Amino acid sequence: MTTSTTEKKAIRVVVWGENRHEQVNAVVRGIYPDGMHSTIAEGITRLLGDDVTVTTRVLDDPEHGMTEELLAQTDVLLWWGHTAHEEVSDEVVDRIQKHVLEGMGIIVLHSGHHSKIFRRLMGTTCSLRWRNDNDGELIWTVSPRHPIAEGVPQPLVIPGQEMYGEFFDIPEPDELIFISSFSGGEVFRSGITYRRGYGKVFYFSPGDEIFPVYHHPDVQRVIANGVKWAHSERARESYLITPMYVSGEFDRPVLTSPEGLVDYYTRELIAPRETAD
Amino acid sequence: MTTSTTEKKAIRVVVWGENRHEQVNAVVRGIYPDGMHSTIAEGITRLLGDDVTVTTRVLDDPEHGMTEELLAQTDVLLWWGHTAHEEVSDEVVDRIQKHVLEGMGIIVLHSGHHSKIFRRLMGTTCSLRWRNDNDGELIWTVSPRHPIAEGVPQPLVIPGQEMYGEFFDIPEPDELIFISSFSGGEVFRSGITYRRGYGKVFYFSPGDEIFPVYHHPDVQRVIANGVKWAHSERARESYLITPMYVSGEFDRPVLTSPEGLVDYYTRELIAPRETAD
Amino acid sequence: MTTSTTEKKAIRVVVWGENRHEQVNAVVRGIYPDGMHSTIAEGITRLLGDDVTVTTRVLDDPEHGMTEELLAQTDVLLWWGHTAHEEVSDEVVDRIQKHVLEGMGIIVLHSGHHSKIFRRLMGTTCSLRWRNDNDGELIWTVSPRHPIAEGVPQPLVIPGQEMYGEFFDIPEPDELIFISSFSGGEVFRSGITYRRGYGKVFYFSPGDEIFPVYHHPDVQRVIANGVKWAHSERARESYLITPMYVSGEFDRPVLTSPEGLVDYYTRELIAPRETAD
Amino acid sequence: MTTSTTEKKAIRVVVWGENRHEQVNAVVRGIYPDGMHSTIAEGITRLLGDDVTVTTRVLDDPEHGMTEELLAQTDVLLWWGHTAHEEVSDEVVDRIQKHVLEGMGIIVLHSGHHSKIFRRLMGTTCSLRWRNDNDGELIWTVSPRHPIAEGVPQPLVIPGQEMYGEFFDIPEPDELIFISSFSGGEVFRSGITYRRGYGKVFYFSPGDEIFPVYHHPDVQRVIANGVKWAHSERARESYLITPMYVSGEFDRPVLTSPEGLVDYYTRELIAPRETAD
Repeated sequence: MTTSTTEKKAIRVVVWGENRHEQVNAVVRGIYPDGMHSTIAEGITRLLGDDVTVTTRVLDDPEHGMTEELLAQTDVLLWWGHTAHEEVSDEVVDRIQKHVLEGMGIIVLHSGHHSKIFRRLMGTTCSLRWRNDNDGELIWTVSPRHPIAEGVPQPLVIPGQEMYGEFFDIPEPDELIFISSFSGGEVFRSGITYRRGYGKVFYFSPGDEIFPVYHHPDVQRVIANGVKWAHSERARESYLITPMYVSGEFDRPVLTSPEGLVDYYTRELIAPRETAD
Repeated sequence: MTTSTTEKKAIRVVVWGENRHEQVNAVVRGIYPDGMHSTIAEGITRLLGDDVTVTTRVLDDPEHGMTEELLAQTDVLLWWGHTAHEEVSDEVVDRIQKHVLEGMGIIVLHSGHHSKIFRRLMGTTCSLRWRNDNDGELIWTVSPRHPIAEGVPQPLVIPGQEMYGEFFDIPEPDELIFISSFSGGEVFRSGITYRRGYGKVFYFSPGDEIFPVYHHPDVQRVIANGVKWAHSERARESYLITPMYVSGEFDRPVLTSPEGLVDYYTRELIAPRETAD
Repeated sequence: MTTSTTEKKAIRVVVWGENRHEQVNAVVRGIYPDGMHSTIAEGITRLLGDDVTVTTRVLDDPEHGMTEELLAQTDVLLWWGHTAHEEVSDEVVDRIQKHVLEGMGIIVLHSGHHSKIFRRLMGTTCSLRWRNDNDGELIWTVSPRHPIAEGVPQPLVIPGQEMYGEFFDIPEPDELIFISSFSGGEVFRSGITYRRGYGKVFYFSPGDEIFPVYHHPDVQRVIANGVKWAHSERARESYLITPMYVSGEFDRPVLTSPEGLVDYYTRELIAPRETAD
Repeated sequence: MTTSTTEKKAIRVVVWGENRHEQVNAVVRGIYPDGMHSTIAEGITRLLGDDVTVTTRVLDDPEHGMTEELLAQTDVLLWWGHTAHEEVSDEVVDRIQKHVLEGMGIIVLHSGHHSKIFRRLMGTTCSLRWRNDNDGELIWTVSPRHPIAEGVPQPLVIPGQEMYGEFFDIPEPDELIFISSFSGGEVFRSGITYRRGYGKVFYFSPGDEIFPVYHHPDVQRVIANGVKWAHSERARESYLITPMYVSGEFDRPVLTSPEGLVDYYTRELIAPRETAD
């Protein structure tokens, strides 16, 4: 048993909400008076306390709130969207993808399965079966020692929920953590992870806007676990440009330029054109 | 469109049945008068016809029917056991494992999850939740283009069945093909595949002895698909002994012997002791 | 042993070549007088004969040769590009992706790792280390019973080749078949597969334009094996639209429309708006 | 930035060494005067300090040092064996396997690939190619953000080593972290992980006894990272007995007994025989 005093950087979390249903649907507004994103953010703060700093952004913010400045300071981004996926600009999707590939964690929630950013990271349609008929959902853990499943009851019970069912058109998950069943008898791979570049991706399906799912303490637990899992303490790193290597100089990447080979990091000329070819 | 005349070797299938419940339980005998193994075998023959030759063996046969001679002539072995796993001799388990690792396909059915051979191939307890209470089972395909799922309805419906539920203590499957839900709300990874050595392994969970599951045409379809998938046209190959290699002679494995290096295949001396060390 | 006469549809293969190096580089033209795509196509025809019909298309064809008509009649598409990835129109990339997700196989070769279509299907940068310095390459099989490895020597030896090395920024492969080493000591996951939607993806890295790699009989063998593996006998199927389901009617997807629910297949009204909400 | 004072339990590590080469081979004794296990243990202590307590055991200890008492108090076991695998008693192998399946981490080193415990956990021959000819080894990271790869150079260079090459007869790894190349041109999946039951398994191949590999600071770094990764803070848990479930009582497993159903945890009778059947 050792006692240690550690300086730990808080995980910087941004919860992105589409925030449209809240404007037009009284039921949704009744459940989430400050928007779904606020409830999701509060759940994370309640469970992780000083280990996190949590802010929120919405679709109607300038650049949808997803500025280069904010993303560069974000460890884990959560994404909830549904009715307005097509309004998210491609430029912002490019930017988020770049940050994920460089090391930012991302947690995609519920109907975010059809968001531009999730489809971009997956390469598939991400389509699924569905029925919005107040099904009960049971979420079963199939990877009991995975950190995302820690403290989650077997099963996690959601009394009323939209059904999401198979076939779910996704790439083979790196890890399958949760499988859900619904009152209608359908099943769904409801908690799955992927690595994309240097970043981690967690998709978690519960959360239709007309049910109070994000007030559910066990759902909040899964999301908080996901935040801890998806975040990396290592610095953002770019691999967008393909570096060339000189034989035997394993740690010294170079780039070709009109003048010849340049150092990958300093961009200084290290071998003029005639020797480079 | 081309027309070709091909000589195709029939797939040699052996269905192994424990055949004990049939002796003591009138319900089981009523459902499977000739034993479960016979019904399973008939289903394969009905669907695959001349593409297979199917025989059966039972626990009480000498060496449980699993002689070296038979296994050497078997392309795919199916295994159903439940109440007498411990009666299967370790020597026979060793032998079956060796044949799987050398290229024989194996399909493990239902309570075969706790058989010695399946646990041997998996390395885990292979334990699971269960309840024998006449649950309905729905089997959902999550890998729709997998050959084992070909022609299988979405979902495959089994009116009455024993419940098998998660957590199922298995290694991460190479492929997840089916997920089942039960009337009680449980879920189960009911169709999974593994490669072990040069052999293929398919576990398929439906099939308690007190329900007529193996008479179900869709269940028979899955099993027949599994036979085609698990079988290999390539010859049995051994990798039990670790071959040594001489630098640069990539295709010429050698073995050490008291006299020196011997050729892996011919076992002739190729380098006397003094040069071998 | 059974003899059967089967009508088998030939696999319809299209080899797409960028065909730019061939125009400007005499070395490349010397190795591939009719273009790299022609040599790749000839290798497939030589090995698979009547089992395939092979045609070629190039970047400068109208719509890059990738018309809807052609893709709808293509079982497996091979893709070699390098210097002009950005000239491929996004519309054509969308179209190819759609066909892969609906069941077309795709084989991406060498510098196609940075093509728009491969990055689209992967969701990552697909960047890698490289050095074009006439390295020897040894390709080792790590999945010896995979159909793509059938008849491939251990190792497959390529005397002169461009080095492609790790880290290769790809999603975790579904299957890892080949790992290469190079004279410089680098390693590379040179043969990998993925499923995307209903389609199969095989990436195989050998093949720089200034080496006669596609004349190599063993490389041709791998590509021919890849064609057989990537092709599906099942019809193209769309999953782009998410179907809704009515409780208990597992096989009857519906869509929402302004008038109410319509049958997914016939598009006929089955439940007017008032009952649908 | 937050400051927190945490009580953290030290990770209890046991390094098991076969300790036979050290008795008979002066070269090995010269490199590892206190035995290989001591050097491995020292490397872990040097890098992890107060975060670990490290002890060692050897084959010739009573029960090979692997008593129930010790294993119950072990978070991570490291295993190096080579020449005397067959001397390890099956009872001890059973015991170690049980502890892994209940949550103990295990790191298998070098020729431990052929140990009884590794083959037990894998289910395959675990055979490989080899050549002991003082090859240089380069270890390449293919999963750069995996915790086991943290702080490891790209590549990790080992000047002299035994060659281990493919085909390595193992189940498909859950995670592939390192691939090695050797001077002879061979490649090897040298850093791989598996989950087995509730425990984590890491195999790392460098480490022949006649080379000073375990004095190499980068090799020590990988092993120390492996210790942190393989250890679990959660209590040991058993899943060896299959619990039965009553419908709807998801968290209350029961067992069948001659008297009827008994509570899985208290073993008290909850339903006498007549109602249980």
